[in-house]
Amino acid sequence: MKIAIDGMGGDNAPKAVVEGVIKALNEYQGIEYYITGPKEKIEEELKNYTYDKSLINIVDAREVISPNEHPVMALKKKKDSSICKALKLVKDKECDAVISGGSTGAFLAGCTLIVGRIKGIERPALAPIMPGKNGSFMIVDAGANVDCKPNYLVQFAKMGKIYYQGVLGKENPSVGLVNIGAEEEKGNELTKAAHKLLKEEKLNFVGNVEPRETSNGDVNVLVCDGFVGNTLLKMYEGVASTLLSMIKDEILSSGLLSKLGALFLKPVFKSLKIKFDYKEYGGAPFLGVNGICIKAHGSSDGKAFKNAIRQTKTFYDNKVLEKIKEELQNNI
Amino acid sequence: MKIAIDGMGGDNAPKAVVEGVIKALNEYQGIEYYITGPKEKIEEELKNYTYDKSLINIVDAREVISPNEHPVMALKKKKDSSICKALKLVKDKECDAVISGGSTGAFLAGCTLIVGRIKGIERPALAPIMPGKNGSFMIVDAGANVDCKPNYLVQFAKMGKIYYQGVLGKENPSVGLVNIGAEEEKGNELTKAAHKLLKEEKLNFVGNVEPRETSNGDVNVLVCDGFVGNTLLKMYEGVASTLLSMIKDEILSSGLLSKLGALFLKPVFKSLKIKFDYKEYGGAPFLGVNGICIKAHGSSDGKAFKNAIRQTKTFYDNKVLEKIKEELQNNI
Repeated sequence: MKIAIDGMGGDNAPKAVVEGVIKALNEYQGIEYYITGPKEKIEEELKNYTYDKSLINIVDAREVISPNEHPVMALKKKKDSSICKALKLVKDKECDAVISGGSTGAFLAGCTLIVGRIKGIERPALAPIMPGKNGSFMIVDAGANVDCKPNYLVQFAKMGKIYYQGVLGKENPSVGLVNIGAEEEKGNELTKAAHKLLKEEKLNFVGNVEPRETSNGDVNVLVCDGFVGNTLLKMYEGVASTLLSMIKDEILSSGLLSKLGALFLKPVFKSLKIKFDYKEYGGAPFLGVNGICIKAHGSSDGKAFKNAIRQTKTFYDNKVLEKIKEELQNNI
Repeated sequence: MKIAIDGMGGDNAPKAVVEGVIKALNEYQGIEYYITGPKEKIEEELKNYTYDKSLINIVDAREVISPNEHPVMALKKKKDSSICKALKLVKDKECDAVISGGSTGAFLAGCTLIVGRIKGIERPALAPIMPGKNGSFMIVDAGANVDCKPNYLVQFAKMGKIYYQGVLGKENPSVGLVNIGAEEEKGNELTKAAHKLLKEEKLNFVGNVEPRETSNGDVNVLVCDGFVGNTLLKMYEGVASTLLSMIKDEILSSGLLSKLGALFLKPVFKSLKIKFDYKEYGGAPFLGVNGICIKAHGSSDGKAFKNAIRQTKTFYDNKVLEKIKEELQNNI
């Protein structure tokens, strides 16, 4: 397969992007890479490695879109940006997939404007996979659609199910509706209407999942509007890091025994840190666009990009895009 | 002052309620209590204590509303319930305030239906105070209004500010809008419109606060719709407890040194537990109703009820209700 990767996307680009590609090249077979960005900068990074030159192509792009720019305006103005060039490769069928660690807004807008929606999909959705206590769970949508209609959530559920099944290998994953209150009649107008619709679908729908239950990871695919999904995502990261830093502060301000205790507990905290490490989880697919589009975390390092590539390959190998098209185009 | 307290409200009622009242009686001056519930049950609990009998009255109520009942239906059917009787005491001006640890839905509905809204208030809001890393913060609304209009959020901000100032004693507390994204133009239709309105008000408005920042406690009053507010609240409790239980699991499955480390760190975890302990924070006021109405946590113990009484007293002593009426009635 051929993967286009935004060479300038992310806090550590292009260094981390190139490092990730080289790592992936050594680990996975049958992938050809197209790195977009200023030719000389990408070449400079590639110089540090020995690799099969036939498998890495540089696609020159002179501009960079920063996360602070207005997404749609930037896309229109900067046709020669690394994001636009990478998306264009997928649109023109020169590549099978695209990965970017750059501006989330510009990347998602570009996926819709350049690659295009799948016919029949109302709104594409961002679907990151998160580490839970008892297993991984997926949030659809995690921020692309802040105002939703009930039937969008049904499409999110269907796409999420196919993706979770294809990429995480679970037959008939469970689907839950994020809602405040477990009972069917609880929630706001959106969730009450969405609950009724979801019940009617051929899904392993387990009903409402309260926010505090989400992090258990007992339900595989969680659907919600993008405002709530983004809130969950950010709270998850935020509360965990607040709590860990509070533990640290407490340890620093307490006696020698506590400090010794902290030393003994280092492996425990390290193992927990790995569980919560986004780098292990690759990127978030943007489901519903007519191509494999993966948003990598902005602070991705080489390992995170490598894992995003692994995830992209699984997406491709398991024909997730074809399955989404098949199920959702027939279902309108 | 006179406080009505729902003797049957909460998982540990009436034992914890009576315990809390006795504790408060010994600690705070000038309060007379009206405990509602089956006379014989309340008397049975009171028998365990020696106290000034002129300060505790029992108001017989033969029914109890459970959290599983439909709030409005239960209120209509069970006029002789401990919740209804307690609310009625405030409506009839026999008491200055009411506290309940019972069904949140029934209590809030009862506050609006029996005690009534302040003229000019569109929607009363539940406003719990939460422990943050750098200070306490308040969420308005935390679940009473799941579908909101922008101007509701402005009223939440004004009421929250007056309450925070009056009860937590901070001059001109900061007010933030919970939103996904720091920039003004970010968010959904509601937050975009609310942001514009909040900027125009005489408030110490600091702009958008992203969910992950909320738990820092750097912003005093956080406004949002009740769906988002309830999500924040529940995620806050949920992620913290998931994380702590993951730490525990890791410790149990690791070696002797880690277990020893955990032993040494016990005081650290204990001190953190106190910081996160809802019992320290009393109850959540229901702001915008024409009375002092405090919702205590369902799992409140005696100490939590005592703290809810302390908070109610501060609410009363600092004339928070009068200030809300003054500011919001004039402002329509």
